[in-house]
Amino acid sequence: MRLLPFSIAGCLLCFSTTLSAQNSLLGFDADGAAAQQALEARFDANLSAAELDAWLKEMSRQPHHLGSVRDKEVADFVAARFREWGYDTEIVEYEVLFPSPKTRELELVAPTRFTASLSEDSLSEDPSTSNITDLLPTYNAFSIDGEVEGELVFVNYGTPADYEILDRYGISVAGKIAISRYGGSWRGIKPKLAAEKGAIGTLIYSDPEDDGYGAGDVYPDGPFKHESGVQRGSVMDMPTYPGDVLTPFIGATADARRIPREDAPTITEIPVLPISYRDAQPLLAAMGGEVVPPEWRGGLPITYHLGPGPARVRMKLEFNWDMVTAYNVIAKLEASTYPDQWVIRGNHHDGWNHGAADPLSGLVALMAEAKSLAALAAAGQRPLRTVVYAAWDGEEEGLIGSTEWVEDNAALLSERAVAYINTDGNSRGFVNIGGSHVLEKMANEVMRDVTDPQTGVSVAARRRARIEATGSEQARGELKSRADMRISPLGSGSDYSPFLQHLGIASLNIGFGGEANDGSYHTLYDTYEHYTRFQDPGMVYGVALSQVAGRATLRLAYAPRLPFEFKGLADNVGLYVSEVEKLAEDMRKQTEAENARIDSGIYALALDPTKTLGAPLRKPELPFFNFAPLKNALAELQDAANAYAELAGSGAAASAQENKLLYTIERALTDESGLPGRPWYRHHIYAPGFYTGYGVKTLPGVREAIEERQFDLVAGEVDAAAAVITNAAARVRELAR
Amino acid sequence: MRLLPFSIAGCLLCFSTTLSAQNSLLGFDADGAAAQQALEARFDANLSAAELDAWLKEMSRQPHHLGSVRDKEVADFVAARFREWGYDTEIVEYEVLFPSPKTRELELVAPTRFTASLSEDSLSEDPSTSNITDLLPTYNAFSIDGEVEGELVFVNYGTPADYEILDRYGISVAGKIAISRYGGSWRGIKPKLAAEKGAIGTLIYSDPEDDGYGAGDVYPDGPFKHESGVQRGSVMDMPTYPGDVLTPFIGATADARRIPREDAPTITEIPVLPISYRDAQPLLAAMGGEVVPPEWRGGLPITYHLGPGPARVRMKLEFNWDMVTAYNVIAKLEASTYPDQWVIRGNHHDGWNHGAADPLSGLVALMAEAKSLAALAAAGQRPLRTVVYAAWDGEEEGLIGSTEWVEDNAALLSERAVAYINTDGNSRGFVNIGGSHVLEKMANEVMRDVTDPQTGVSVAARRRARIEATGSEQARGELKSRADMRISPLGSGSDYSPFLQHLGIASLNIGFGGEANDGSYHTLYDTYEHYTRFQDPGMVYGVALSQVAGRATLRLAYAPRLPFEFKGLADNVGLYVSEVEKLAEDMRKQTEAENARIDSGIYALALDPTKTLGAPLRKPELPFFNFAPLKNALAELQDAANAYAELAGSGAAASAQENKLLYTIERALTDESGLPGRPWYRHHIYAPGFYTGYGVKTLPGVREAIEERQFDLVAGEVDAAAAVITNAAARVRELAR
Repeated sequence: MRLLPFSIAGCLLCFSTTLSAQNSLLGFDADGAAAQQALEARFDANLSAAELDAWLKEMSRQPHHLGSVRDKEVADFVAARFREWGYDTEIVEYEVLFPSPKTRELELVAPTRFTASLSEDSLSEDPSTSNITDLLPTYNAFSIDGEVEGELVFVNYGTPADYEILDRYGISVAGKIAISRYGGSWRGIKPKLAAEKGAIGTLIYSDPEDDGYGAGDVYPDGPFKHESGVQRGSVMDMPTYPGDVLTPFIGATADARRIPREDAPTITEIPVLPISYRDAQPLLAAMGGEVVPPEWRGGLPITYHLGPGPARVRMKLEFNWDMVTAYNVIAKLEASTYPDQWVIRGNHHDGWNHGAADPLSGLVALMAEAKSLAALAAAGQRPLRTVVYAAWDGEEEGLIGSTEWVEDNAALLSERAVAYINTDGNSRGFVNIGGSHVLEKMANEVMRDVTDPQTGVSVAARRRARIEATGSEQARGELKSRADMRISPLGSGSDYSPFLQHLGIASLNIGFGGEANDGSYHTLYDTYEHYTRFQDPGMVYGVALSQVAGRATLRLAYAPRLPFEFKGLADNVGLYVSEVEKLAEDMRKQTEAENARIDSGIYALALDPTKTLGAPLRKPELPFFNFAPLKNALAELQDAANAYAELAGSGAAASAQENKLLYTIERALTDESGLPGRPWYRHHIYAPGFYTGYGVKTLPGVREAIEERQFDLVAGEVDAAAAVITNAAARVRELAR
Repeated sequence: MRLLPFSIAGCLLCFSTTLSAQNSLLGFDADGAAAQQALEARFDANLSAAELDAWLKEMSRQPHHLGSVRDKEVADFVAARFREWGYDTEIVEYEVLFPSPKTRELELVAPTRFTASLSEDSLSEDPSTSNITDLLPTYNAFSIDGEVEGELVFVNYGTPADYEILDRYGISVAGKIAISRYGGSWRGIKPKLAAEKGAIGTLIYSDPEDDGYGAGDVYPDGPFKHESGVQRGSVMDMPTYPGDVLTPFIGATADARRIPREDAPTITEIPVLPISYRDAQPLLAAMGGEVVPPEWRGGLPITYHLGPGPARVRMKLEFNWDMVTAYNVIAKLEASTYPDQWVIRGNHHDGWNHGAADPLSGLVALMAEAKSLAALAAAGQRPLRTVVYAAWDGEEEGLIGSTEWVEDNAALLSERAVAYINTDGNSRGFVNIGGSHVLEKMANEVMRDVTDPQTGVSVAARRRARIEATGSEQARGELKSRADMRISPLGSGSDYSPFLQHLGIASLNIGFGGEANDGSYHTLYDTYEHYTRFQDPGMVYGVALSQVAGRATLRLAYAPRLPFEFKGLADNVGLYVSEVEKLAEDMRKQTEAENARIDSGIYALALDPTKTLGAPLRKPELPFFNFAPLKNALAELQDAANAYAELAGSGAAASAQENKLLYTIERALTDESGLPGRPWYRHHIYAPGFYTGYGVKTLPGVREAIEERQFDLVAGEVDAAAAVITNAAARVRELAR
């Protein structure tokens, strides 16, 4: 902050620097950068939108979920292409638990009767929706079996904050069935919290306000959710550990030692079922009790009530708890210089149904990259490092294919993995790169060098324009005060999670989006027709994705000095340290003020005495925490990062040993004991939130201890985070010498 | 702000002061205060909820709008009561223009056909809704006649900000029919702005999100708007002048000189019709074009589109432009001491239909006050000043009865009117007092002395608790830093407007509310059944309203020194001065920043090139304004107010001349030339917004000149406002001597 005037001046400078030195590339000297950019131009020339389109059409013509016949066919199709292009290709198999529906019943039994259809309509406008061999019925994978009957309670998004509101109304879900809408948190949080609160079952419906007619025209008129559309999805407790539920920490090989299913902690405690808004409306309309708070209202043409009851529902769920084979396609282009340094690029291939957008729109970009790289290598421009392409299976059920492969190859990957570049679908709009901040500078250089297909400027310039036009004051200010745009920290939700958070492999997750709104996610309507009509007509953003992810892969594979940088890391960690400190201060003040209001009795006067909404509950007040260890560690990291920056900027080549030191610094940010209650998560800077799911928590041990008011954990988590930062700082300093 | 620590200490003091000196009353010495409070206890003892209920039931049994047979019967009923209680009562008549519907047709003619019913359903659950002799069809009074056909454009609330958004989409309403939802501004602004933009007609519908099923259970299950409910209402251009459209500035006596109807500037330029959400849905569903911005969405189960078209509607409106008689009931209790000092207390009696809530729930409170005061007077406790009770006619069509009476008696009232106390309906919850800040301290003392019927604490304590529980940080802070709660400044929307803003008579507007949500406003469902079931069961808040408005009236009528005070005025004017200064600063910065963004071309990159939403339009940048005259005037007012405060606090009686000086200080805040373009509005501190309607604008000349970017007007308006403040300060200083 105190540097602002200087930084603004610095920024004017940096803009012109950027313009005049467009060819500078982290990890390359001037000549190397020029050669690399020439290589990338040839890389681009090999990319073909028509080819992406053809692969997408072929692979998405039929449902191809984990365990289906078509799943194996798609894996074979991808493997065949890789082999065609000269890759050393294998299909690596794991034996994993996969529940699929046997019985699904949902009926309203009081005060009126209604039986939910639990099915999606085939549409004449979209032939794919009639091509439904092997179609998985609508369900949430890793719901437990069960038959329950009870009154409905409306829990909004089913987040901790929502339950605090219900508490104020004196409403408990104990012994009831919670009905929640999609959104507000990752879906798996909804049954997890409902079960913690004593619910006997959970329904999750898609409210039309969120991605149905309230958001825009519905399919087939527009991209939004058809009234019968149901968002499938896993409810496995991924914030505890992802992957096969029976083999935490180890690969699910045929002979792996498995825990009994009944002991698997990541299967839900209560049955849970997703439904369409068409099926939800009669249930919600039959509810009584208080009207919901205004911010809980959805878009159905009814008055929403909290319950409990009088609507009672019976739900019965039984699953086939089958062991099936997951097929990961692993394709290597082995390098001569550093064959044991692996740059890994992955996207899953399994889909809930046809999976055109999710995952195939990302997979076809990956395939185009692989084909183009193979051509470059065949023409004599072999990368310095080995490039590994992966098409994962079983991502949808809980990152199963990638997690099992990472666990199975943990020792090897810890040694060899330089970085992991993930994609998982794509659509029209603005580039978004999330990931490890050691790669932030490289990511910015990549965005600078790829052209947006709609506007002809760089994808970086388009992203900057969007932040300038619609971002927060803080984000706008950073455009001026910071040389690089921030990349977002990663939580979970795709296959980078085991690489980054379990093994400490620097990762990126890349996609375009923001202009192609979508209600097809995980429904029958995620088809080739929907995708090419609404999400990326002409597949031009597919090609742009290949250019971005391809450049990231190529620069990591070809750079004499790996394009890692630590000032961006230090700056982002500094932001997180200030955030957790502010979090504690804000919570302290808010808690004190709210407790004072509660104690003063004003709520008894401020609230309507004829309604049931009561005062908020008193919360424990916050002690003062010692954040000094974090700040000391941060100072060390900042110093070390500054010291290394000069060397990084020189373009001087690095030895094999130096390069290994570079890429293993991310490992230093993990430790063996991991996060409280979930040791699988070893990274102390990035993790998915225990009560948000996909959403990231930075400095997760510290932040969640404060947020969840487990104040006795804070000091230990501060020390753990400070220790990994100090370790990383020492490694950076070693490099700088 | 710099006084905060001191003020907090002061506040603890003031709380205990308040407790120990509960009997202190502005305008009375200690003995006088005790006597007054004893009088008020007797006043309370005469109030009867059963009587309020009986009057409400009788007067609301049938529609009684201006010009109807029942309207005159209700006026006679009220007049008969006043006479019974001993008042010198007359029914003062004015001849006014009153349009009622002759032809109302609305049909969708393309792409499908639909004819709007334009009628409200009678409900078996509410017998009043079948008692519809003389029922006015649903319409907006003072719409011009016309038959138009055109494509629909959705204009959201139809405010200036909404048209800026439409401009960005390249959508014009020129030659089209604007369809707007109720809310966001006073209804009359919608056709006014639409006409300014070239529209040929306007429809206004009630969106279910705002007061229908989206807000809560609908009538008869709950209080919210039935699907057939239509909010009637005037669209006369009241921000130009209210009252009879043919007789601005003068009373509409039989022989008054009238302007031709075609010259009346307050009749709309284009036809306008209100409709129910049941009638609106087919029209909105037939619209195409871009999907509306998220914040424009309503609660119908459709995707909202901007148009224009393809939905085309034809609307035909013809009115009977009749001259009718408005009957104001004026009842006087003449005083002996100061017969020529009038304390006026009013509420209108006409309703759009049955009018149980609006206006009768307020009128019955007024009647109870009048009956009780008459009993006190009969028992020998005659007030020092004359009390005038008024039941106005024609309020709904545009404050017609009150405005004509005020204009007709302008000279007399300028001399004699001490203050005007208005009510206009009531419901359960929290007291709300708006008005002249010379009465702020008295209003606070009144709130301190009335008990909330639901909680047993004072209505002031309940209101404080609500602000503490739900108010802004600023409002909460002021509870500690300020002795009195602020009363809100008054815009328009009820009969205080001519008193306050045309003649400068200090006014209050009083009502309870906030706990009785309501969709019955101006519909067929504003019945006795609805009111007593949902809005004030047991009429306990009706009695509380009598206690509050009664105390305000009585203290003004009995105080030896009129309970006016000027520190509150100075403090509020100081707030408005700082607001307009900040407004200019904020607008300057925002305009500069937004223009810079526009000029940089970022919108071309940030916006979706496949959509029609374009960049915002450049706006003229702001010059720096000289606010010094306002600040100098304010300083004079503050000094004078401080000087008078000692005298006011002494409880010393005032002479007739001093009292007149006190109550005419509000006149000093007006001038003859009034506001730019609307000279009828003479008050330079309070006015209804020219483009908000009912919503108040403080320092209106200055504020609106800035907001509407008429920068060349600002200096003159600053001088005009500074001049009235200086005048008022001089009068206060004269008093203090």
